[in-house]
Amino acid sequence: MKATIINIGDELLIGQVINSNASWIAQQLNTIGIDVLRINIVSDKADDIFNVLDEAKIKADIILMTGGLGPTNDDITKETLCKYFNTCLVLNESVIHEISEIFKKRGLTLTEKNRKQAEVPESCTVIPNKQGTAPGMWFEQNEKIFISMPGVPYEMKAMISDFIIPMLKEKTGKDAIVHKTILTQGIGESFLSDIIEDWENNLPKDVNLAYLPSPGLVRLRLTAKGIDYDVLSNIIENEITKLKKLIPEYIYGFDSEALELIIGKLLTERGKTLVTAESCTGGYIAHCITKVPGSSVYFKGSIIAYSNEVKENLLNVKHETLVEHGAVSEETVKEMAKNIRLKLNANFSIAVSGIAGPDGGTPEKPVGLVYIAVASKDSVLVEKFQFWNNRLANIERATVNALNMLRKEIIKKA
Amino acid sequence: MKATIINIGDELLIGQVINSNASWIAQQLNTIGIDVLRINIVSDKADDIFNVLDEAKIKADIILMTGGLGPTNDDITKETLCKYFNTCLVLNESVIHEISEIFKKRGLTLTEKNRKQAEVPESCTVIPNKQGTAPGMWFEQNEKIFISMPGVPYEMKAMISDFIIPMLKEKTGKDAIVHKTILTQGIGESFLSDIIEDWENNLPKDVNLAYLPSPGLVRLRLTAKGIDYDVLSNIIENEITKLKKLIPEYIYGFDSEALELIIGKLLTERGKTLVTAESCTGGYIAHCITKVPGSSVYFKGSIIAYSNEVKENLLNVKHETLVEHGAVSEETVKEMAKNIRLKLNANFSIAVSGIAGPDGGTPEKPVGLVYIAVASKDSVLVEKFQFWNNRLANIERATVNALNMLRKEIIKKA
Repeated sequence: MKATIINIGDELLIGQVINSNASWIAQQLNTIGIDVLRINIVSDKADDIFNVLDEAKIKADIILMTGGLGPTNDDITKETLCKYFNTCLVLNESVIHEISEIFKKRGLTLTEKNRKQAEVPESCTVIPNKQGTAPGMWFEQNEKIFISMPGVPYEMKAMISDFIIPMLKEKTGKDAIVHKTILTQGIGESFLSDIIEDWENNLPKDVNLAYLPSPGLVRLRLTAKGIDYDVLSNIIENEITKLKKLIPEYIYGFDSEALELIIGKLLTERGKTLVTAESCTGGYIAHCITKVPGSSVYFKGSIIAYSNEVKENLLNVKHETLVEHGAVSEETVKEMAKNIRLKLNANFSIAVSGIAGPDGGTPEKPVGLVYIAVASKDSVLVEKFQFWNNRLANIERATVNALNMLRKEIIKKA
Repeated sequence: MKATIINIGDELLIGQVINSNASWIAQQLNTIGIDVLRINIVSDKADDIFNVLDEAKIKADIILMTGGLGPTNDDITKETLCKYFNTCLVLNESVIHEISEIFKKRGLTLTEKNRKQAEVPESCTVIPNKQGTAPGMWFEQNEKIFISMPGVPYEMKAMISDFIIPMLKEKTGKDAIVHKTILTQGIGESFLSDIIEDWENNLPKDVNLAYLPSPGLVRLRLTAKGIDYDVLSNIIENEITKLKKLIPEYIYGFDSEALELIIGKLLTERGKTLVTAESCTGGYIAHCITKVPGSSVYFKGSIIAYSNEVKENLLNVKHETLVEHGAVSEETVKEMAKNIRLKLNANFSIAVSGIAGPDGGTPEKPVGLVYIAVASKDSVLVEKFQFWNNRLANIERATVNALNMLRKEIIKKA
């Protein structure tokens, strides 16, 4: 079974709202073996909705729509679907009952606009909306399924989880789909693809590989489709075993495990603590670490030393080191890492100093030059990196590399 | 001129990546009067790309594509466009030169795959990629424009801003569209809309208002369309003058001025410096400040005191204060702000302490409770906030409120 997702709404076309509904719906459909062929965003205009439905039903078996079901004048999806399926609106007793109950509970009076919410196309099956007033609609025509849902994310999500997925499961056959994502760090996309070329070319047919790069990281996504979920899982696991032998040093995790989550788990398991001393990353490493709920168990704090004055006075970097080698140097970052670890009394520390750009570079020390140090009780590891000229991407790359250096050190030390 | 946006990539169709590119592109096109008719997401398959291009060119004058330009086998957009436009790949000397330079700088050797990045369709105009190795492509056929860009957001964004918008401006006719966004902080969307209801209802026709809320902020976007840019600008300015009288205390800026940019300008103009002491925001305030190029001129550094130990030892918060009032209290945050300002020798300081959640709340101090202090030479201002239960949104709300408190203090003091 193949699906097309149609998101209806002018706010999406002017870029006011990011379309996060479509990706969530696609994920849910994937879990029951339904592929998404296409995602379309169209305006709140009847012609556009007619056209996109005509296009979608050529290839898709299931067409899922969101948006345009609100009570205001700009919402026209319900009326348009009535015309499209050549049916008319009728008052649905159970929907009007539910809406009345909601309003009674909140001490509000039902208006004419609210009553209209309870009118549904005669030929559709009503999908209850437990989170709001606009019901969902399920149409069938020429063996195609058309589903219309509200655009409000939590209303749509409850409808999909509670009603639509179970209803679709009954319709779909035995198709299964398995995704697994391998997370790599420390090697660029093109170099990685050279190393794993043979493995890639020898993947079983029906197993697909995709490269998903972001600053400092490359994710490799394997997808297998077939009939038996367990068989497919085994095939994928088998390929991952081979891959692990090829690039053991680059794989840091799987699926949606962020580096800061992995580090959090490692530190918690071992009862170890972490601190950071940041210059060019300006607090971004600390932010990534403290995004994780419960991080106060292992993260004690940080000194952000954006000026040499703070590097000297608070991080106790020697004046001579700064004068002789400069703030962006192996020597400085080493002292930063050692001193912050002792000062804040932690097991591990990260220190970063570099030139994020766009200004501040010199011929000897160009924009993108970054030194990263990771210190523990008996060692300080330092690495030098040369990134590009985009400030935010450089901050992100430095952070990702620092976190992965730390991850390896934690594993090595314990 | 009408546009269609096509985002190419399997990762978008399985819901692994949210399509934030399309909304950003739509916003940019809007600023030069180009409406987006449709946004389509299709897979990395040649047939799908052919079909969507055939559909799009019926109604749109400009077709903008992202994705599928990487060096790996799953990326097929360039080859597909060659077939679509009946042309062939040729090595582009200036692109190969640029890629070689990038690799030389980073001390890497050019592989065959990287060289292939420099091959472009013979019939296209190359759009330089200043942030990566995959060039953009501009085709023209039967008075329609087809533009292909990388899917990596910062590469695509630089290409749009630096080359594509200026190139499209030359092609667009005399339609004028004026957007002006008023940035507000410190009041929720529904309360704001109650205060400005009369103003909103009396807006001239052809002037549209949209509410764009995000954690801690509400942006109000006014849009006017017509023939004469100056006339439209005057109409909009007139409405903004009225609005300024209605909500002077909530407006902090206009258009894309982020709070951290405004603060950077204020501090630079006045020759003043800033430091922060962060607990629950965990470095996010420092990160926002240091995202701004040149921030090292006014930002000296920060102490992130995630543990009470660091609050006491490094920020010199009194032991009694922490015992009597707790880490999340007016008294603690006041000492944090005072002490960091003196310790790092700055003109202004921000301090934050709170419970970001999801855990750590008590009946007296629930999740979402945050104290913020802003200190200067002769005063410490403290405010108490009660946010909701979403950790990341709470970190963002605390940051936005802290930055706006600081902005007002800087203006008041100088």
